[in-house]
Amino acid sequence: MKLLEERIKKDGYILNGNIIKVDSFLNHQLDIEFLSQLSEAIYQHFKDKDINKILTIEASGIALATVLSQKFNYVPVVFAKKQKNKNLGTDVYQSLVKSFTTDKEYTVTVSKKYLNENDNLIIIDDFLAEGNALKGLIDVANQAGSKVSGISVAVEKGFQEGGKIIRDMGYDLLSLAVIKSIENEQFQF
Amino acid sequence: MKLLEERIKKDGYILNGNIIKVDSFLNHQLDIEFLSQLSEAIYQHFKDKDINKILTIEASGIALATVLSQKFNYVPVVFAKKQKNKNLGTDVYQSLVKSFTTDKEYTVTVSKKYLNENDNLIIIDDFLAEGNALKGLIDVANQAGSKVSGISVAVEKGFQEGGKIIRDMGYDLLSLAVIKSIENEQFQF
Repeated sequence: MKLLEERIKKDGYILNGNIIKVDSFLNHQLDIEFLSQLSEAIYQHFKDKDINKILTIEASGIALATVLSQKFNYVPVVFAKKQKNKNLGTDVYQSLVKSFTTDKEYTVTVSKKYLNENDNLIIIDDFLAEGNALKGLIDVANQAGSKVSGISVAVEKGFQEGGKIIRDMGYDLLSLAVIKSIENEQFQF
Repeated sequence: MKLLEERIKKDGYILNGNIIKVDSFLNHQLDIEFLSQLSEAIYQHFKDKDINKILTIEASGIALATVLSQKFNYVPVVFAKKQKNKNLGTDVYQSLVKSFTTDKEYTVTVSKKYLNENDNLIIIDDFLAEGNALKGLIDVANQAGSKVSGISVAVEKGFQEGGKIIRDMGYDLLSLAVIKSIENEQFQF
């Protein structure tokens, strides 16, 4: 969508040659009014899918999932945990994920209490690069027997494989902005 | 507030004798409509304080901060990061925190870009136990020269020291529910 592309051009920047930073509005400082506008576009795309729950992952997906819940008549949001936490208990779904950003492995964990076979999900995240976080969330949803009726991310790095992988798996993936390349420190959409 | 106390009585439970779990609506699965009601109470308490930014910490403070931003005419939310992340850069404010929940130390980090001496903050978190996370956020705000005009948490464990510590520091701390004790697996407010 034009709105997000323009915002990335205006406020985005590039770190170390290849890391795209949009932390003034999307994933460190949050512009909630802007995120709400983004979530309206997600809602319009998936509004006829009978979504009854939003699945995301801590931490950067939570704000977008929160405002999207408001569009979907306040369906519950469940955010997967990345850190091992003794207080989650053992009755959990888990999937191992390799992070592109930090180059480390982590475990995506969701309590079995909060995902089940009656759930018709949209999965939300801020960024899509190699698709590993999304694959972890899809794996967890599959373990729970939940249906994944849609996936949406704010920013897809079109020059990495994640978008193709997720679409080849047959999912309806809505990326609000796809960055095709970075040339001379400029974003190309 | 009665609303939150009733919800804790209805949906909260106790793990291993002393861990209070409210993960069906506050910090794993999120009831966004309910969080919005909580945020209205926070707004009513602090609405005359000229708040221009909300500071919270990943991950469980983000959803409440998001809906609170909507009450405060969409002031920006900044969430402090807990994990060391090479992509945050070096131009950051940091504070070392010991977690009551996980019994580990972690570093609270905020980019210098997103906190400064013109900021008049409310600090938000889901839980207050020993007050260590809040002290870390206050420390970061002080380093930035920001003013902390209010602090609010959803649940204060009144049988731990955090609330007293923060109030003794002179801050206006609003805890939406204070659990005074746990007796026979029942919450006492």
